[in-house]
Amino acid sequence: MKSRIAVTGATGFLGQHVINHLLDSGIEAVATARTPSGASNRCCFVPLDIANPPPDAFERLGAPEVLIHLAWHGLPNYRSRHHFEQGLPHHYGFLKGLIEAGLQKLVVAGTCFEYGLQSGALSEQTPTDPCTAYGFAKDALRRQLEYLTAEHATQLVWTRLFYLWGEGQASGSLYAQLSVAAQRGEPQFKMSGGEQLRDYLHVAEAARHLVTLAMRPCAFSLINLCSGRPISIRRLVERWISEQGWTIRPQFGCYPYPDYEPLAFWGDAARLNQTVSV
Amino acid sequence: MKSRIAVTGATGFLGQHVINHLLDSGIEAVATARTPSGASNRCCFVPLDIANPPPDAFERLGAPEVLIHLAWHGLPNYRSRHHFEQGLPHHYGFLKGLIEAGLQKLVVAGTCFEYGLQSGALSEQTPTDPCTAYGFAKDALRRQLEYLTAEHATQLVWTRLFYLWGEGQASGSLYAQLSVAAQRGEPQFKMSGGEQLRDYLHVAEAARHLVTLAMRPCAFSLINLCSGRPISIRRLVERWISEQGWTIRPQFGCYPYPDYEPLAFWGDAARLNQTVSV
Repeated sequence: MKSRIAVTGATGFLGQHVINHLLDSGIEAVATARTPSGASNRCCFVPLDIANPPPDAFERLGAPEVLIHLAWHGLPNYRSRHHFEQGLPHHYGFLKGLIEAGLQKLVVAGTCFEYGLQSGALSEQTPTDPCTAYGFAKDALRRQLEYLTAEHATQLVWTRLFYLWGEGQASGSLYAQLSVAAQRGEPQFKMSGGEQLRDYLHVAEAARHLVTLAMRPCAFSLINLCSGRPISIRRLVERWISEQGWTIRPQFGCYPYPDYEPLAFWGDAARLNQTVSV
Repeated sequence: MKSRIAVTGATGFLGQHVINHLLDSGIEAVATARTPSGASNRCCFVPLDIANPPPDAFERLGAPEVLIHLAWHGLPNYRSRHHFEQGLPHHYGFLKGLIEAGLQKLVVAGTCFEYGLQSGALSEQTPTDPCTAYGFAKDALRRQLEYLTAEHATQLVWTRLFYLWGEGQASGSLYAQLSVAAQRGEPQFKMSGGEQLRDYLHVAEAARHLVTLAMRPCAFSLINLCSGRPISIRRLVERWISEQGWTIRPQFGCYPYPDYEPLAFWGDAARLNQTVSV
């Protein structure tokens, strides 16, 4: 069997949207994850353990032309050493096997956490300086893949995801917490000061961009996957409440700002816009 | 047996000088390397394979108070992937074992290659941006050890070595090549343009600094090990020739400048001077 695109982490929040967008676009896809829980029944699912892949992983995935690699383990615990002690070598080993087996194009979900505590509009030329084990591990995986793909015919497209939101997101996320509280009929939603500026993209839009980057020739090997528009968490929450017609009221200043993020940072979307709007 | 200081890479160019300086200073030392070739017969030698250490490595090294970790494999091939595919996980795993076994202080030889293609006086606050697999692997090892030691009582002192020179250096080094050619009576020494500015420290001085950093309380966890004085390669070669009374003449412009190094960079030695001069 020969597939066009294989997707790891296909049963996750973003992965499900990517699979659906691929299938809706008529693109042949193979979904993979450790277990099939949450897998779409619209396409082929191949169970794979990235920490211990079979030697014929590339063939089992249908010898895809492109891999969209979304899998990552143990979030949102950004400070855990497992990100580089297990995650980094496991993901590098898994992807190296596919590259050496003949994978032509690899689109990977990196993270804005690679930038670390840098403020303002972050462009892909901004040198990375991660301050969390998670950000470090993704940054290190990117660098290792750059050295590796330089010796192979594989095209690497490393995307840096900023913040996503949407229905079905993990229960710890801001949108999921707000949604649950609102639907429970709670009068107030405790949150941080809300003045921090972030870059939020709807998950369906992020999935659409990933599919575009996978299908089209891409002039860049490093692309922010972001809206390019900073928004305060305060305004974001108010907008979600208004759009959904919820009655819950935000209660600001209940939690401190996290110390591993700058108060104001967002993505420079020039490369993304240039690439997906052609 | 309880030793004060253990040294990995003890049979190497710098390691031999560190061992001799320790013994000359009356400090109890244990030397380790994969094989005893080149080991001093003045102190205890423990053979250890860092890629496959025994579970009681800390005890075999005499439960040292300090480890000076100089070992690294496969230089000067700066571009080889083995630096991060094998070197990084092997060294991290080895050091993690010692830290978890109770090591109190760890002094590691990092490299100016962690800075990558950045010019001028490089201070420890300069964000790293390695451009070689070697520089990346050392930078990644440092970050991983920072995350790890933050969870333990181990003090980490990461030193960034600039260029060393001295008798007994590996045959590919500039000083060794010049020395061999001069002693062979060759009339001319082919070299690059020689205008590049570098930071050269005599190996005995570097060894003395490492021992000082190992023995004294240290206010910094990151210290350039350098002279702090830029010198052109041209002037350096002319000085070596003059000091040794050789008759060989440098022939400039025979080789291109390496593309993985800036034309002019040297270390900011303020932290080192502040620490070792007290």
